[in-house]
Amino acid sequence: MGQTAEIIAIGDEILAAHTLNTNSYWISGELRKIGVKTIAHHTIADEEKSIVRVLDNIQNDTNYIFITGGLGPTKDDITKRVITKYFGGKLVFHQNILNELKDYFRKGDRDFPNTINDQAYYPDNAEILDNQKGSAKGMCFVKRNQNYFLMPGVPHEMKNIIERHILPRLQKDTKVAYQEFTISTTGISEAELIGKIEFIFEKYPLVKLAYYPSIEGVKIRIGQKIIDGNIDLLQSKNKLLDVLGNYVYSLKDEDITEIIAKKLMENDLTISVAESCTGGLVSHRITQNPGSSKYFKEGIVVYSNAAKEKYLKVKSSTLEKYGAVSEETVLEMAKGMQKISGTDIALAITGIAGPSGGTETKPVGLVWIGISTMKNTYAKKIIFNKDRKLNKQYFAQRSLDILRLELIKNENN
Amino acid sequence: MGQTAEIIAIGDEILAAHTLNTNSYWISGELRKIGVKTIAHHTIADEEKSIVRVLDNIQNDTNYIFITGGLGPTKDDITKRVITKYFGGKLVFHQNILNELKDYFRKGDRDFPNTINDQAYYPDNAEILDNQKGSAKGMCFVKRNQNYFLMPGVPHEMKNIIERHILPRLQKDTKVAYQEFTISTTGISEAELIGKIEFIFEKYPLVKLAYYPSIEGVKIRIGQKIIDGNIDLLQSKNKLLDVLGNYVYSLKDEDITEIIAKKLMENDLTISVAESCTGGLVSHRITQNPGSSKYFKEGIVVYSNAAKEKYLKVKSSTLEKYGAVSEETVLEMAKGMQKISGTDIALAITGIAGPSGGTETKPVGLVWIGISTMKNTYAKKIIFNKDRKLNKQYFAQRSLDILRLELIKNENN
Repeated sequence: MGQTAEIIAIGDEILAAHTLNTNSYWISGELRKIGVKTIAHHTIADEEKSIVRVLDNIQNDTNYIFITGGLGPTKDDITKRVITKYFGGKLVFHQNILNELKDYFRKGDRDFPNTINDQAYYPDNAEILDNQKGSAKGMCFVKRNQNYFLMPGVPHEMKNIIERHILPRLQKDTKVAYQEFTISTTGISEAELIGKIEFIFEKYPLVKLAYYPSIEGVKIRIGQKIIDGNIDLLQSKNKLLDVLGNYVYSLKDEDITEIIAKKLMENDLTISVAESCTGGLVSHRITQNPGSSKYFKEGIVVYSNAAKEKYLKVKSSTLEKYGAVSEETVLEMAKGMQKISGTDIALAITGIAGPSGGTETKPVGLVWIGISTMKNTYAKKIIFNKDRKLNKQYFAQRSLDILRLELIKNENN
Repeated sequence: MGQTAEIIAIGDEILAAHTLNTNSYWISGELRKIGVKTIAHHTIADEEKSIVRVLDNIQNDTNYIFITGGLGPTKDDITKRVITKYFGGKLVFHQNILNELKDYFRKGDRDFPNTINDQAYYPDNAEILDNQKGSAKGMCFVKRNQNYFLMPGVPHEMKNIIERHILPRLQKDTKVAYQEFTISTTGISEAELIGKIEFIFEKYPLVKLAYYPSIEGVKIRIGQKIIDGNIDLLQSKNKLLDVLGNYVYSLKDEDITEIIAKKLMENDLTISVAESCTGGLVSHRITQNPGSSKYFKEGIVVYSNAAKEKYLKVKSSTLEKYGAVSEETVLEMAKGMQKISGTDIALAITGIAGPSGGTETKPVGLVWIGISTMKNTYAKKIIFNKDRKLNKQYFAQRSLDILRLELIKNENN
């Protein structure tokens, strides 16, 4: 029998549907990777009797209990006090934590909050777990063989504490009972994928197959119980990769911009981006990666026709004759961007995100994507069928994929 | 005392983090609108002992219990059988339901599933609730004064049953019992807000106050039970708005870019954006709004120093003497952007998103934000203390807020 966890989210804001609870989902995903099975999620109100009730109902044989929410400075946040009392301890003042808090607020150039002293009290019956992302620390209470981890509800603070203090500890205690691979694809729909790969798995009934579609593409997850070995898993994975070829962009659950970053750095290439309909989103995504200034030099959001002419030297006759969303315009945009930036590759995007601006022949959702390199310039047309915000996301993802495919072509030449 | 609900989601796929549970969130939101308070969410595994356990633990005075998941045709779906037994009934075959199912599959041009006969069995101790969106019906079990509603987990099927059969019934039993306002603030921390406004509410104990911090700022929600009238709520709201002034950007839960869009259009103004560290995110956010081409003309992502000089005419001597992240540079960026674009206002951002590039005097998280208009040019410095991706988000939000404040100043002149 493997190890188990229960996850408790404390917060009126979740029960009142002001906040969607993504913390429990994230924690269960991390636990699954190290072989710990979640057996229940609980969400309860910020009040003593609800907290006591849920703690009373935790199974006696659950190994790890994760509690998120209710550690901040507001009045509602009674979690720390109630849980400390529940496990028979009391809150004590820590001068060193007060000093740290003062440093923290000073660095952020902000006034000390009135509640700063309250935030320096911690239980005398728990281990304190440092939080690098905020002012409220995590705690670990141990009751017989059960570990109760208490963390703030702010997602990036909760993740920081779990990744740094809790997962490494749990990994020592557990062995992975299940092996799985995540294969990230883009540029192909779930239905098309099923048509291409489902037949492979008829021969491998021990392999469990699942699809996770999103704006960024479809992730395929395949897994097998270690008790059955992993030969079926490895064989089916290889066949799947053969069939899918360049639709696969990562085997490590990376963002497509991380793949692009690696290829640009390995080949010592630079890029620039000229965006119309995506409004800066492509440049934003590329610059999410540390060190992106090594290969990303500049981007221009040429939202108006005047900007397309001024910066990229798109001809006004081209804009008049073919329109701003056309193969002719995107090719001139890509060439112009490559020339003015002096980068090895330029990417250009022009389309109709909507809701207005579509016509019979150029509907909302139409996008032209152009690439210009030292050697050649070309463009591709795609039509998506979404609302404005989703169209921007789909346009950006496909543009990044066309850039990735150009980099693969470049490597093979 | 108002009416209460508990919501149970049954499904291994949620506990294994293959699916994010949005059903409980949606149901709680619908219940809140009609004055029913959710007191707990539970998520449990597809197995008899977990289902029995959660039902045993439901509070005796909870009025409505919503159970989703586990009614479809797959093997895991044991919910219907277990719950029927729990309430002392048994499953009986319905010929009319089998006929309906056959029609349903014929219409969809699909083969009858192997399990079609099982799907025609329903409890003899529950009311059957029709489902227009799928083959599994809802059920309502009544135990003393408690109603247990059982629905499939597929979101649009669950919503169909709740909207058509359950909400109208609950609305008869309840009256909207609560009035509330959402006040969106930015540029001020939760701790600072508490210091500024908490005293107001000491005089209004009937008003409930809650804070929802995020990257975009802190939303304040205040509400009052209608049974107590709403004078306290209205009075405290007015005092709060007086105290907070321009920290408040919306009373309608809008994005700050929607406020900016309105002000630009009302005053017939145009803008452009020069971004370094935010990498296109500010332009992306501004262009999320339909019709943004009316006021947003162009943006330049001047990631390299060369780009800052080439497009914005930032002097190389300025970059050398003061560095790319400095008041001097951001002022030249803003002026250069305003000049080259010819827009009424230009916004410029330069900072250190991290993780590298920080120094003792210019730490990671430092950002300079500049504004240039026809009349004047100025800059503000802020330090955040986050990781790269969060810094980009905080930098962008604060830049948009500085733009909003400029537009307010402009209106008042």
